[in-house]
Amino acid sequence: MLALRVEKNSLSVKDVERPDAADEALVRVLLSGICNTDLEIARGYAGFSGTIGHEFVGVVEKSTDHALVGRRVVGEINAGCGKCDLCRAGDSRHCASRTVLGIVGRDGAHAEFLQLPARNLFRVPDNVSDQHAVFTEPLAAACGILERVSISKDDRVAVIGDGKLGLLCAQALALTGAQLLLIGKHESKLRIADRRGIETTMPTEAAKRGREFDVVVEASGAAPGFALALDLLRPKGQLVLKSTFHGKTELDAARIVVDEISIAGSRCGRFTPALDLLKKGAVDVDSLISEEFPLSKGVQAMRRAAARGVLKVLLKPS
Amino acid sequence: MLALRVEKNSLSVKDVERPDAADEALVRVLLSGICNTDLEIARGYAGFSGTIGHEFVGVVEKSTDHALVGRRVVGEINAGCGKCDLCRAGDSRHCASRTVLGIVGRDGAHAEFLQLPARNLFRVPDNVSDQHAVFTEPLAAACGILERVSISKDDRVAVIGDGKLGLLCAQALALTGAQLLLIGKHESKLRIADRRGIETTMPTEAAKRGREFDVVVEASGAAPGFALALDLLRPKGQLVLKSTFHGKTELDAARIVVDEISIAGSRCGRFTPALDLLKKGAVDVDSLISEEFPLSKGVQAMRRAAARGVLKVLLKPS
Repeated sequence: MLALRVEKNSLSVKDVERPDAADEALVRVLLSGICNTDLEIARGYAGFSGTIGHEFVGVVEKSTDHALVGRRVVGEINAGCGKCDLCRAGDSRHCASRTVLGIVGRDGAHAEFLQLPARNLFRVPDNVSDQHAVFTEPLAAACGILERVSISKDDRVAVIGDGKLGLLCAQALALTGAQLLLIGKHESKLRIADRRGIETTMPTEAAKRGREFDVVVEASGAAPGFALALDLLRPKGQLVLKSTFHGKTELDAARIVVDEISIAGSRCGRFTPALDLLKKGAVDVDSLISEEFPLSKGVQAMRRAAARGVLKVLLKPS
Repeated sequence: MLALRVEKNSLSVKDVERPDAADEALVRVLLSGICNTDLEIARGYAGFSGTIGHEFVGVVEKSTDHALVGRRVVGEINAGCGKCDLCRAGDSRHCASRTVLGIVGRDGAHAEFLQLPARNLFRVPDNVSDQHAVFTEPLAAACGILERVSISKDDRVAVIGDGKLGLLCAQALALTGAQLLLIGKHESKLRIADRRGIETTMPTEAAKRGREFDVVVEASGAAPGFALALDLLRPKGQLVLKSTFHGKTELDAARIVVDEISIAGSRCGRFTPALDLLKKGAVDVDSLISEEFPLSKGVQAMRRAAARGVLKVLLKPS
């Protein structure tokens, strides 16, 4: 089968063996989405070697859970040991022995087939198209913010970063009823949030607003976003770090102490709330799709995904 | 009166006017304590100019609150506007217009007299000596950790830094019943905690323990302490930043995201719990006193306080 692989920091589409672990479900991929993490992995971040990709929708071809066979599914990307306290409590996201689809020790989704434990799979509601379902994982990550901080309708919330993740975070958090401001540098991207009734502004304008926000979500992944977040937060405000920063980031730690800021890192979210939003059509994901490439053109697709102004690039195996 | 002043980044004991604001209480200082923040202010941090010092015990000489006159008191160092929402809710620590004793816009405690709003003053129980009472402010800061994070007896807690602040934090948190480890580089300082039944170790040994802590308090004020904290925390663990870091600090922000670490800055604490601990003799502060200087020798005292191995240096006005 075809798979988009990173090997020795080199990216290529290769013909490889189909996965065949008997104790996991085999999924035929219908569509996969390129995430910024994929771009970082291709640059050597995380030292991963293998098939990349962790956002997908597919059809179960084989599973010991027969009810899944033939069903359209999306999949939770963290596969835990199943035995530790965390896994037994039903949350493998921090299992110390976990593998992570296309990120840690497990071949990923930019392929014709992938395998995952059956317990990781979630059926996709019939009214959710493949193009929408492929956003379940990043939307779950956006919704995961609410697993880490409480946001009520009286809160003033800012999201920094108008990329794919920032746009999903802004839309997910706007549904709490909180006053929301999306801060980004790209007019065309901000317009997507504008259309959902979300207030938007540029970083230079945001910096003039002063320290009025209860919660700021950093989804730009860059140090200036971190600094702006601290400038916008009220004392005792909450900063959510949503982007994976690479290398060392400089910060003004004294500010965190003096203003008693709280910071919460946030990685993966639960799939059920995300699927529910997609089913209800509560989030605009169509506007986030920039382009679709055949899997065979995976290398070009990755290059396209890294270009300025581009949002989600999808890969179709056949 | 004599006062230890920082002016144009130069430190000296000067003869200055006694404070005389009619709407504030006048306090004759019995004893003041040198904090690391004083040392940093003398180095130019915070751009403060005036009399430094914020840890004190004194006697009220004048006050519109007549019940306070003649009483021995300690004082909350943040003086708020009294009108904003925060102040009216009884907490001026984050009032945007606050002054802070010896730190922001208000002459401090290394002087024969100081002034503070009467509402900032707390009577010292008779059984608490001056030498103990002068620790109220830093002990309150240590207890303030519990205003920012919940710690139960089942938690594994590490405190990084065996300076004055670290030793107070370790002792205050040990009273929660949690399993506590104090990590520091100075055998003589660690011994103070040892004597209270607190487990202690060196940073190199601590680093071998792996990620087993639910809560880590960073009280060393140095970037290696920050990095060690992240190495010790379990996924979803809580890091408390207690020291004021100066300048920019580098950190591995990806780690915070991937492991969903929470960080809480913590500055000043409430005085009542601290006075209560001192009254009960629940914390050993005697062992933290390195030396006492007359206020007239304030410059030498500051030099002494900055020397390696030295803990609390006290100043006595007369």
